Amino acid sequence: MYLNRNSINRLEKIERINLMNSVTGVKSVLLIGTINKKKSTNLAIFSSIVHISSNPSLIGFFIRTNMKIRRDTFENLVENNNFTLNHIHTSSVKNSHLTSIKFHKDVSEFSTCGFTEQYIDGFSAPFVAESNIKLGLNLKEIVEFESNCSKLIIGEVEHIFLKDRFLENNHTVNLEKSDSISVGGLNTYYKSTKYKSLPYARLEGFSKL
Amino acid sequence: MYLNRNSINRLEKIERINLMNSVTGVKSVLLIGTINKKKSTNLAIFSSIVHISSNPSLIGFFIRTNMKIRRDTFENLVENNNFTLNHIHTSSVKNSHLTSIKFHKDVSEFSTCGFTEQYIDGFSAPFVAESNIKLGLNLKEIVEFESNCSKLIIGEVEHIFLKDRFLENNHTVNLEKSDSISVGGLNTYYKSTKYKSLPYARLEGFSKL
Repeated sequence: MYLNRNSINRLEKIERINLMNSVTGVKSVLLIGTINKKKSTNLAIFSSIVHISSNPSLIGFFIRTNMKIRRDTFENLVENNNFTLNHIHTSSVKNSHLTSIKFHKDVSEFSTCGFTEQYIDGFSAPFVAESNIKLGLNLKEIVEFESNCSKLIIGEVEHIFLKDRFLENNHTVNLEKSDSISVGGLNTYYKSTKYKSLPYARLEGFSKL
Repeated sequence: MYLNRNSINRLEKIERINLMNSVTGVKSVLLIGTINKKKSTNLAIFSSIVHISSNPSLIGFFIRTNMKIRRDTFENLVENNNFTLNHIHTSSVKNSHLTSIKFHKDVSEFSTCGFTEQYIDGFSAPFVAESNIKLGLNLKEIVEFESNCSKLIIGEVEHIFLKDRFLENNHTVNLEKSDSISVGGLNTYYKSTKYKSLPYARLEGFSKL
């Protein structure tokens, strides 16, 4: 099948959304936890998470802010300047998917969708107790750009919780062992199986690889 | 295991790089094809690809430009304003990984790493003939930001090649059928197995899901 710009434009809206969201491959999918000044918590599923840099430890995600609907995650972030990233597992795919529902503003997706809030001293945003890997981040920068009405939110990692047994090869997380789920498109969830680890590729060792 | 900002700072450089690149879950990994004005081609492996929007059809990727080493992909892009995104499969993981080697500027990773250039009329950047899914994009915007010396490159999709049998549920690509590889960290490659597709979550159907 070949699609050019015109045939992409002629697709039905849902077909175009599905195709464009799945055609670049699987994406990490995480639950973002936030809290507002009134101590109302929010939990939302995001698949737009990107590694920005290792030193400083920066992670970003894209959020739509042009729409007329509420963006609790964004509003809470601006109020509190911190958020959590929590992995999704086979046992929590369905409940995680449900956090995408537009509940009433006062309803917390934590209790409604079956997740437990977990807190640590000196950090206001709630972690997901059920997640095998969870990170706490402080807001660092909000990047706006022309092409689209999204914003890129960049946070610096302050806290990481994970099990020792997930780490191998100089602190690389084995994402099969952590049972971390990924997503293709909007709603097709995938499991990952480790296929191959390769050494850092150097010109000197080229012929040996 | 718990790591705070201080213990992250005390990690060895390679441990910190590995941890920060793998802790958010698996990432899509694609080969980016470009060409310069002298018709020298370049092929490079990237794991920083992000869906930006479906209408217009925008895809982005992050590229480091602060370093003193050459960035052929970025330089070619600025010269020619177009690039291709090509999926990696189990049979091409090793050769794809080798494209990360810093070859001499005049050496094309296509021939050196065992890939075949494929062209279409009116579009200068080379596609990877061996890839099951390939996209051609035109440069739309280069976004700079403060927190880091990366740039976000945004392209608009002009061409998509994929097999009909990869599409299901209103044009969602089945990434298990396409044998598309993902990556965790810098060099651990994963296969994806479809776990579950869930319907669009609505408040009205909440209790039924």
